[in-house]
Amino acid sequence: MHLVTFMHEGRPTVGIADEALSKVQPLPANVAPDMLTLISKYDDIKGSLAGAGAAISLAGVELLAPIPRPARNVFCVGKNYHEHAKEFAGSGYDSSAKEIVPEYPVIFTKPSSTVIGQGAAIPQHLDTTDSTDYEGELTVIIGRGGRGIKKADALKHVFGYTIINDVTARTLQHQHRQWFIGKGIDGFCPMGPAILTADAMPDPTKMHLKTFVNGELRQNASVADLVFDIPTLIETLSAGITLEPGDVIATGTPAGVGLGFTPPRFLKKGDVVAIEVSGIGRLENPVG
Amino acid sequence: MHLVTFMHEGRPTVGIADEALSKVQPLPANVAPDMLTLISKYDDIKGSLAGAGAAISLAGVELLAPIPRPARNVFCVGKNYHEHAKEFAGSGYDSSAKEIVPEYPVIFTKPSSTVIGQGAAIPQHLDTTDSTDYEGELTVIIGRGGRGIKKADALKHVFGYTIINDVTARTLQHQHRQWFIGKGIDGFCPMGPAILTADAMPDPTKMHLKTFVNGELRQNASVADLVFDIPTLIETLSAGITLEPGDVIATGTPAGVGLGFTPPRFLKKGDVVAIEVSGIGRLENPVG
Repeated sequence: MHLVTFMHEGRPTVGIADEALSKVQPLPANVAPDMLTLISKYDDIKGSLAGAGAAISLAGVELLAPIPRPARNVFCVGKNYHEHAKEFAGSGYDSSAKEIVPEYPVIFTKPSSTVIGQGAAIPQHLDTTDSTDYEGELTVIIGRGGRGIKKADALKHVFGYTIINDVTARTLQHQHRQWFIGKGIDGFCPMGPAILTADAMPDPTKMHLKTFVNGELRQNASVADLVFDIPTLIETLSAGITLEPGDVIATGTPAGVGLGFTPPRFLKKGDVVAIEVSGIGRLENPVG
Repeated sequence: MHLVTFMHEGRPTVGIADEALSKVQPLPANVAPDMLTLISKYDDIKGSLAGAGAAISLAGVELLAPIPRPARNVFCVGKNYHEHAKEFAGSGYDSSAKEIVPEYPVIFTKPSSTVIGQGAAIPQHLDTTDSTDYEGELTVIIGRGGRGIKKADALKHVFGYTIINDVTARTLQHQHRQWFIGKGIDGFCPMGPAILTADAMPDPTKMHLKTFVNGELRQNASVADLVFDIPTLIETLSAGITLEPGDVIATGTPAGVGLGFTPPRFLKKGDVVAIEVSGIGRLENPVG
C-alpha cells in the first residue's frame, strides 16, 4: 500500500494511492488526522483501512512530505555504501575520516524543519558556500517503537519505506566538523512521494535506487550493497535510544554524488533532482 | 524570574519560583498549559504574568525538566572552551580533531528523548561501553524565532537560560565518528532546575559554571571564556536554520570532564553529579 499526505479541501490529508501514484483516496480525518497518528495506531486498524469517497487524480493536487513534520530530527547514516565511502574520503570534504569504510555506523541528524515535499524547491540560496549536493537515500519509517531491538526482530518494527534527498552544503559539512550545520538547512530534506508499507516489501534489500540530475543518471545502486543493513541500523540506534512510531531513518547514499566528480558538480538554481526507488516511486524537486 | 515545570495535582504544571528555588506558584493552565506554549506567547503576556494560589514548597514536589520534551532535538556545541578543547583533543576520544580549537562552531544534536529532570537518575547502565562522562553546560532557550539573526540582535531572541548535563558515552562517541550515538542515549540530558528569564540576566557572560561529582569540584569556568559566544552561536545556527521558540542550545562544556583525567574518571552507579550556574540554580542527578 502507498500512503501519501496531500492538500485536500484546504488542509493536509492522509490518503491511499495506487501503485502508479496516479490517484488517491483520502482517509477519514477521524481515522488518520495525520500520518504520525495513523502510524501510531496502524497495527489496530490496518485490517479495516479504506479510503472514503471518490479517487482523486494526484496530478491535480499538492503532495506534501508523507510526514511533513517529524516529531524529532531525522536520523541519518553516513558513508553507508562502500563506493560512496571511497568517493567521500577522497574528496577532501570528509572531516572525520580515519578509515574509508567505517567500522561502526556513522549517525547524525537533520532537524525536522528540513523536510519539504514532492516538487518543492530546494533553497540552494541558503547555502552561502555554494556547495550544495544531493544524496538520494532509501528511508525507513519506524512503526512499532522500542529499545534494545535485535537484528532478527528489526523488520517487524518497520512501518514502511520512503525516499529522502539528504541535501548537503559540502563546505559547511567540512568546516563545522560535525555534519549537522551542513545538513540542517531549511528545506534540505525533500521526502516522498509516498510511504510504501512494509507488508508490500518484505525484503528491502530487493529495492534499487537511482538518482538523476536534469535527467542524467548519477546514482544507481542496490539496497543490498549497504555497508550496515537496515536491521543493523535499527539494532544500533535502539541500543540506547528508544525508537518511536514515526521515527525517520535515512539509510545513507550510494556513490555518484556531486562531490565525487572532478571538479565537483554542485547543484545550481534551475537544476532538477529526481530520486527513484523501485516500488516506492520518484521524488523530484527543482533547485531554487 | 525563575520558571519551572513540576508535578502538581497529577499533571505537569508551569510555575514561577523564587530565586532560591524554595517555593513555587503555579501558573493558570489557560495561561501556560506547558512551557513551550508559554514561551511562544511570552512577549504578549509577560507584563501580566502572575502565579495563582498559595506558594508551594518546592522541597515537596517533583521537578521536571523545564521543557520536558523539546519540539526537536537539543542543539549542542562541542569543544567550545579552550581548555576543554585541549583536554578532549589529547584524550584519544576525539574522532574528528584536525585542530585543537575549532575554526567554526562544532554543532551536533541530542534527541528530545534524552531530556530528564532534576533528581532523575542518569541511566548509565544503557552505556554498554562503560565510559559515561558528564559535561556541565550553560544552555540557551530561544524565545523569538527567526533565520538570519545577526550577532548584534541575537540576545533579543533569547527567552532565558537553564543548565544541561550533556552526558556522553565516550567510547561510542569515538567509535561512531559523528557524536550522536554517544550523546543520544535515553536520559542522557538532565535539564534544569529552572529557566532564568533573559530579562534577569542581560549579560550572560557574567555567569559562572561549576560541576561537582560526589561533592568534588571538577569544572569551574566563566561563560566569558566560551570560544564562540552566545551571539555567535545564534548567528551560526540561524544562518540556514529557522530557529523556533523553545529551541534549546547547549553552549558547550569547560575543562574538567572525566576523560581529562589519567586514567579517565567515568561515572559509576551511585555517583551524584551537580552543576551550578550562578543565577540559575543547581542541577543535581544521581547516576543509576
